[in-house]
Amino acid sequence: MAKSEEPRYGLGIDLGGTKILAGVIDLEKGTVIATAKKKTRTKQGAGELLTRMGDAAQEALTAAKLKEGAVVSIGVAAAGQVDPARGVLTAAPNLGGLANIPIGESLGARFGLPIRLGNDVQGAALGELHFGAARGVARSLCVFVGTGVGGALINGGVLDSGPNATAGEIGHLIVHADGRYCGCGGRGHLEAYASRTAMTRRLQEELRRGRPSILRELLKAEKADDNAPGGPAIRSGLLAQALKEKDELTLEVLHEAARFLAYGLTSAINLYNPSRIIIGGGVVEAVPQLVDLVRPIALREALPAAAQGIEIVASQLGDDAGIVGAAILGSSGQ
Amino acid sequence: MAKSEEPRYGLGIDLGGTKILAGVIDLEKGTVIATAKKKTRTKQGAGELLTRMGDAAQEALTAAKLKEGAVVSIGVAAAGQVDPARGVLTAAPNLGGLANIPIGESLGARFGLPIRLGNDVQGAALGELHFGAARGVARSLCVFVGTGVGGALINGGVLDSGPNATAGEIGHLIVHADGRYCGCGGRGHLEAYASRTAMTRRLQEELRRGRPSILRELLKAEKADDNAPGGPAIRSGLLAQALKEKDELTLEVLHEAARFLAYGLTSAINLYNPSRIIIGGGVVEAVPQLVDLVRPIALREALPAAAQGIEIVASQLGDDAGIVGAAILGSSGQ
Repeated sequence: MAKSEEPRYGLGIDLGGTKILAGVIDLEKGTVIATAKKKTRTKQGAGELLTRMGDAAQEALTAAKLKEGAVVSIGVAAAGQVDPARGVLTAAPNLGGLANIPIGESLGARFGLPIRLGNDVQGAALGELHFGAARGVARSLCVFVGTGVGGALINGGVLDSGPNATAGEIGHLIVHADGRYCGCGGRGHLEAYASRTAMTRRLQEELRRGRPSILRELLKAEKADDNAPGGPAIRSGLLAQALKEKDELTLEVLHEAARFLAYGLTSAINLYNPSRIIIGGGVVEAVPQLVDLVRPIALREALPAAAQGIEIVASQLGDDAGIVGAAILGSSGQ
Repeated sequence: MAKSEEPRYGLGIDLGGTKILAGVIDLEKGTVIATAKKKTRTKQGAGELLTRMGDAAQEALTAAKLKEGAVVSIGVAAAGQVDPARGVLTAAPNLGGLANIPIGESLGARFGLPIRLGNDVQGAALGELHFGAARGVARSLCVFVGTGVGGALINGGVLDSGPNATAGEIGHLIVHADGRYCGCGGRGHLEAYASRTAMTRRLQEELRRGRPSILRELLKAEKADDNAPGGPAIRSGLLAQALKEKDELTLEVLHEAARFLAYGLTSAINLYNPSRIIIGGGVVEAVPQLVDLVRPIALREALPAAAQGIEIVASQLGDDAGIVGAAILGSSGQ
């Protein structure tokens, strides 16, 4: 981003499965000036979703109280597959199956600003690259552990998403041939062992066969989502609570996930050889000790020559990574 | 390489575990003008090895009958770990455990030419990049299946070996967590399933428990190396012969190796997203059908968006890849 005398601001929208977060970001400093939040709600269709996104954006813009023309661009980081050229969210399994949503056209027209669309992982990685834990390193790997396991490669100080704009899909490394089925249909993928979805499934299985765990009471105490496959979803916050109580089952499942995540990092270190690995996402926000569990295993299992000098650190932007990254994306920071 | 009116030639030396191959290469066309070969022999120590390398180089130079000054540089591609800056082969488990061999200093002085050192895999990848199957593609992955499984990344049309000069080590992807031990000490690595060493071990185990196979007679007929771990080594040529006879056991073991190799490629496609994958090495030279076995599995298992348009092809330079690549390395083609 070129430095200018007048500060430039960007609108960043993080479109997730449960919430829409919009923020006005200072593009030079990466600071968040104002935000607004709405539930995602996909049942009324794409039109309603676009209206809600626009309304959240308008609220953030109003709250930011900036003068006319200070906000120069819009960026959207969406949980799904995007066609950046057309500004279309082409597929979004986590958005109630909505597809081919013309976000660029709709929001671009409403605000009269240039708009760019990317996926949530690339957005978060851009946030870490410009204002977070990936600063100052030419070659790094960002890994985000949440509902799934996503990732992005950074090379030469820029996001490197490859010819098909898909590079960095570390969640779909095969770490256990012929192993567990992954949400994508593949087998033995890292995501099937290290995501929150995978941990939830293992925990539910163990609870069902009668393993004692404080999770049983914690789940009863909260209004759980009973429609999730394999039983009610276990939020990252609940995992954190159970770990605080030193719940044996949760600890066991966390250690297993950490071990597999480490194996994925081992593969990435040996194949791609980044200088730094940044681990973030909802699970890491709630359970930061995951990074300390993963680090020694990954560094021990990787080839010594490949692992030399590699840092494995936690992400820095946390929940703001999405809107900050989206704003950078929109400003053509990349 | 800059085009000049006078053709420029480079000396390329391929230092392998069993033989030293030296060649004089036309650096513009990639053609091999003359070669010379010697057995490696490491028992008399590093001094003797350096003399033999120099003698092979001198023979190739003499046979090439070029005028004074036509050969402008020397490149060495060695089976082991190298320190390119110092021109030293630092470790070489396949060269009788010799270490810290000052190849650059020794051969540079003998021939009075600039010299550069790289490892054998990087050399072969450079050969494919400049004059083989990796031409014309910005982003590719070279994989070599032989005693081990090696690889190299190409990005932006140049070899991309990462900050630790180790990137591309696809043989050490973890494809089966807690699985077979790898030669490097790790577990579940691709190399432990798809290398010739891995295939030999599986075949020997099956022969020992009485599985019928034509390999038994083929092994008796040739003077086998009984010192290899797990029984006599099974050369790639022998595998090819058994496959030609439709030997069921050999077919089974080949298919297993192909399946794991495909899983490794799946991981590489999802993480790195190359446009082309080039598969070469001794096993592929002898058993080219391996590429056709691997291709459909890798493309089926990879994420559809990541696999789109990816080509998986056989290497083109074959046995000459080493000397051609070494010569390019020496000429600072990269």
